[in-house]
Amino acid sequence: MNPEEEKRATPSSSPVFVHNPHLDVMKDDVLYHFALGTATHNLPAMFGDVKFVCVGGSPWRMKSFTEYIAAEIRMEDPESEYPNICAGTDRYAMYKVGPVLSVSHGMGIPSIAIMLHELIKLLHHAHCEDVTIVRIGTSGGIGLEPGTVVVTKKSMDATFLPKFEQVILGKTVERNTDLDQCLAEELLQCSKELNQFETVIGNTMCTLDFYEGQARLDGAFCSYTEKDKQDYLKKASEAGICNIEMESSVFAAMCKLSGLRAAVVCVTLLDRLKGDQMNGSHEVLQSYQLRPQILVGNYIKKLLKAKAGRSCNSATV
Amino acid sequence: MNPEEEKRATPSSSPVFVHNPHLDVMKDDVLYHFALGTATHNLPAMFGDVKFVCVGGSPWRMKSFTEYIAAEIRMEDPESEYPNICAGTDRYAMYKVGPVLSVSHGMGIPSIAIMLHELIKLLHHAHCEDVTIVRIGTSGGIGLEPGTVVVTKKSMDATFLPKFEQVILGKTVERNTDLDQCLAEELLQCSKELNQFETVIGNTMCTLDFYEGQARLDGAFCSYTEKDKQDYLKKASEAGICNIEMESSVFAAMCKLSGLRAAVVCVTLLDRLKGDQMNGSHEVLQSYQLRPQILVGNYIKKLLKAKAGRSCNSATV
Repeated sequence: MNPEEEKRATPSSSPVFVHNPHLDVMKDDVLYHFALGTATHNLPAMFGDVKFVCVGGSPWRMKSFTEYIAAEIRMEDPESEYPNICAGTDRYAMYKVGPVLSVSHGMGIPSIAIMLHELIKLLHHAHCEDVTIVRIGTSGGIGLEPGTVVVTKKSMDATFLPKFEQVILGKTVERNTDLDQCLAEELLQCSKELNQFETVIGNTMCTLDFYEGQARLDGAFCSYTEKDKQDYLKKASEAGICNIEMESSVFAAMCKLSGLRAAVVCVTLLDRLKGDQMNGSHEVLQSYQLRPQILVGNYIKKLLKAKAGRSCNSATV
Repeated sequence: MNPEEEKRATPSSSPVFVHNPHLDVMKDDVLYHFALGTATHNLPAMFGDVKFVCVGGSPWRMKSFTEYIAAEIRMEDPESEYPNICAGTDRYAMYKVGPVLSVSHGMGIPSIAIMLHELIKLLHHAHCEDVTIVRIGTSGGIGLEPGTVVVTKKSMDATFLPKFEQVILGKTVERNTDLDQCLAEELLQCSKELNQFETVIGNTMCTLDFYEGQARLDGAFCSYTEKDKQDYLKKASEAGICNIEMESSVFAAMCKLSGLRAAVVCVTLLDRLKGDQMNGSHEVLQSYQLRPQILVGNYIKKLLKAKAGRSCNSATV
């Protein structure tokens, strides 16, 4: 374990911050899109032990991640069923095994932002501390072999600037999209040890649209040429952008504001310089989608093992 | 039947437009987020008869709408099961009964935009004509009794302007968000005939965020006061805005571009001037959510009945 890992494995007390004085005077708090609330659920009892949160677009993938991580960390019977904690709604799905929470967020910035507001409040109400959060997702790569995993250095907008624009009361406020560089390096190191697939650290472009917003030629509308597309993607590449997805900027901005140690780990399903359609075989695309969860699962296992070893050593001293 | 309804019920041949020359030279088209495609599915056979498309955020609601409409239009046994046509993915859910297609779109502009790109291509590939599309959704009202249904006149952004900003190759393009005013009036008339709940026509604000973007005081972050919120909502009200949701602007813009006759019908779950939390009872909120589907279901029934009557008359002449 290197010093950084040691530090992470050491108990400290970094809380999950909300920045909202109005919450203090609210009698209770309904987390509407989770179908949870402070008046109806004992959030500290349900979630107080959470140390890792993994989020991803697809509810199926987040259930599959929970089953995978349960087997990996041997916390519980890998054959057992994990109920959807948000079964009262179909907006998001949520699963928990030991200290690992897994939540779906749908597609796009607004969808993940609603989820993150309620997740941050949930972790706050549950008095969680020292939480690491990772988005595991899919993306389009630029000049990378499909199947390559990208750990995001900076999340950039469609003009290649590392910022997220939040509209508040009709006015645009710029927010920083820095992610935890130590966490990114630890994940890269973890992938090297795993040695199962290529992983790189690079910038990620986050767009509000999948078709015209990402210079695809296969949407219902397209007013530009193949050359325009290639020129745009080339400029993106020159800005250090390795892949394109639709959630990382607001994820980075909100996690930074709330003091969550955050990373974005996305597999590339295709090389956008060579095409736009996701026409790889179902099996190949499925196997690519497993890669972020294998990497993050392994990282969590490593950290929990280190922590258990430390506790064990302390107990024998 | 008034002349406008008569015109709508009369067979014509208004196709669903795509505006993309690249589609013509593609060997096949994978509608990735529907798990459908031109090479794997006979889209004209599956969807060629579609005349109405209803879309809404929640997959459960769209399934429930399909069951409701099946009973209303007596097209099929209301007790029968309607399979999810997009069962190969969990991104969207899609159901069909007779000429009525029902599709979920998740939350927020990016999520509905992906769905609409693929829906418009689907209708185009299936050679559909004279298609009416309605978004049935939920919203926050401004100064309206909760449960009021709002049929959107204009969709406005967070600065109260009737436009949608689409980013293409990093540049912002403004798109018109006009909706079909005749269709809105017909829906209002239909609600009057139904006489089950209050329905109004008004402007709808479409935001990229549910919390800070809608001046809520109960998000994880909030940097403004109750007075700032009230001032902002008052200005919105002065611009004719009756309700706030998160999909109408891109819906209006894309439907207009593709020649789809489009309306947005959203129920208000609360009065934002009086609060931010959705703390109405589950039963009351559920009953409110049924209202847009009752209204649109009734409208579709009326049009199909008029069309059947006309065909019948033609046959006997």
